[in-house]
Amino acid sequence: MPHLVILYTPQLDAETDLPALCRALADTMIGVKDENAKAVFPVGGVRVLAYPAAHSAVADSQRDCAFVYLNLRMARGRSDIAKKNAGDALAAAVRAHFAPVLARRHIGITLQIDEGAEVFDAKLGNLHPLFNKG
Amino acid sequence: MPHLVILYTPQLDAETDLPALCRALADTMIGVKDENAKAVFPVGGVRVLAYPAAHSAVADSQRDCAFVYLNLRMARGRSDIAKKNAGDALAAAVRAHFAPVLARRHIGITLQIDEGAEVFDAKLGNLHPLFNKG
Amino acid sequence: MPHLVILYTPQLDAETDLPALCRALADTMIGVKDENAKAVFPVGGVRVLAYPAAHSAVADSQRDCAFVYLNLRMARGRSDIAKKNAGDALAAAVRAHFAPVLARRHIGITLQIDEGAEVFDAKLGNLHPLFNKG
Repeated sequence: MPHLVILYTPQLDAETDLPALCRALADTMIGVKDENAKAVFPVGGVRVLAYPAAHSAVADSQRDCAFVYLNLRMARGRSDIAKKNAGDALAAAVRAHFAPVLARRHIGITLQIDEGAEVFDAKLGNLHPLFNKG
Repeated sequence: MPHLVILYTPQLDAETDLPALCRALADTMIGVKDENAKAVFPVGGVRVLAYPAAHSAVADSQRDCAFVYLNLRMARGRSDIAKKNAGDALAAAVRAHFAPVLARRHIGITLQIDEGAEVFDAKLGNLHPLFNKG
Repeated sequence: MPHLVILYTPQLDAETDLPALCRALADTMIGVKDENAKAVFPVGGVRVLAYPAAHSAVADSQRDCAFVYLNLRMARGRSDIAKKNAGDALAAAVRAHFAPVLARRHIGITLQIDEGAEVFDAKLGNLHPLFNKG
């Protein structure tokens, strides 16, 4: 956590650089600050995963429409400003990345942020100490 | 939004036409009406994405069991009748599509509708104007 | 339901046995008991699906970091002890599976359990009667 999962229609793999999008969004997350100019997300907690669908249908299938859904799940309890800053920064990065795609094809793009409402949570990895070293 | 994501065990790709399922469910979504006979979902907002798992385990693995999970995420605030009509219509379409599969193999099928509880939401694409032209 | 979805960075397919992880977690779920020593999950309802990302970015990409996200979605209304027992048992199984991976590489592992808050739910398959036979 926080992790950003990208689901998209598969024709986009030939039309835009998805690995670059993942990296750009991870960098964006690393740079988000809250109202105290403090980083909202720890570097070691930033994860972006992208999945082209194997099969899909968008709108009425009368045109070749692409679709990208970006969902960031973050831990509960961050401030409203932290959430807004995260959303605005990610939206700007998504807009910048997809500008050439938007100029030449039909595409739906939805970005949403959820706060996790989990009833059990365990962090079992070894990344955080790596990035928290003084 | 609304988008429907289908997660399934991969043996089904050889047993049923998943692209046809995606199209049938998108058409079903386009046809759902609320209590005022008004379309519940805008055409330009209908998206269905299907993902076979790379690896899976179902029940006790003593039999070849398939599994399909269908999750529709829709925006908050629609009426109870709109939600029920959407669920009933999608359940009927899923039943019709899988009837021959249900007749010949073990398969679990779960359909659920969630209302998004997002704390940030941005639509950044260009599809809606395309379908809202007078 | 309950279903467990595993999202992970794709280098892990070459480093650990993901099908074995799926099976181990399904077995773990089958074995979870509540405060009355009753099985929390019906055998016919246990499903584990694993998905390697096509593209990903973890932390600052300055090191080869892997990431695994495990999300169990269970029906609402189970007891706090049932939830805790499920989480503890799955966390132990995840720790055991990944111990050799944790010993040799950077990896983030997050396990979360959500209670479904669906507004529509339909079970359309034929698995449960199979496992409920007397």
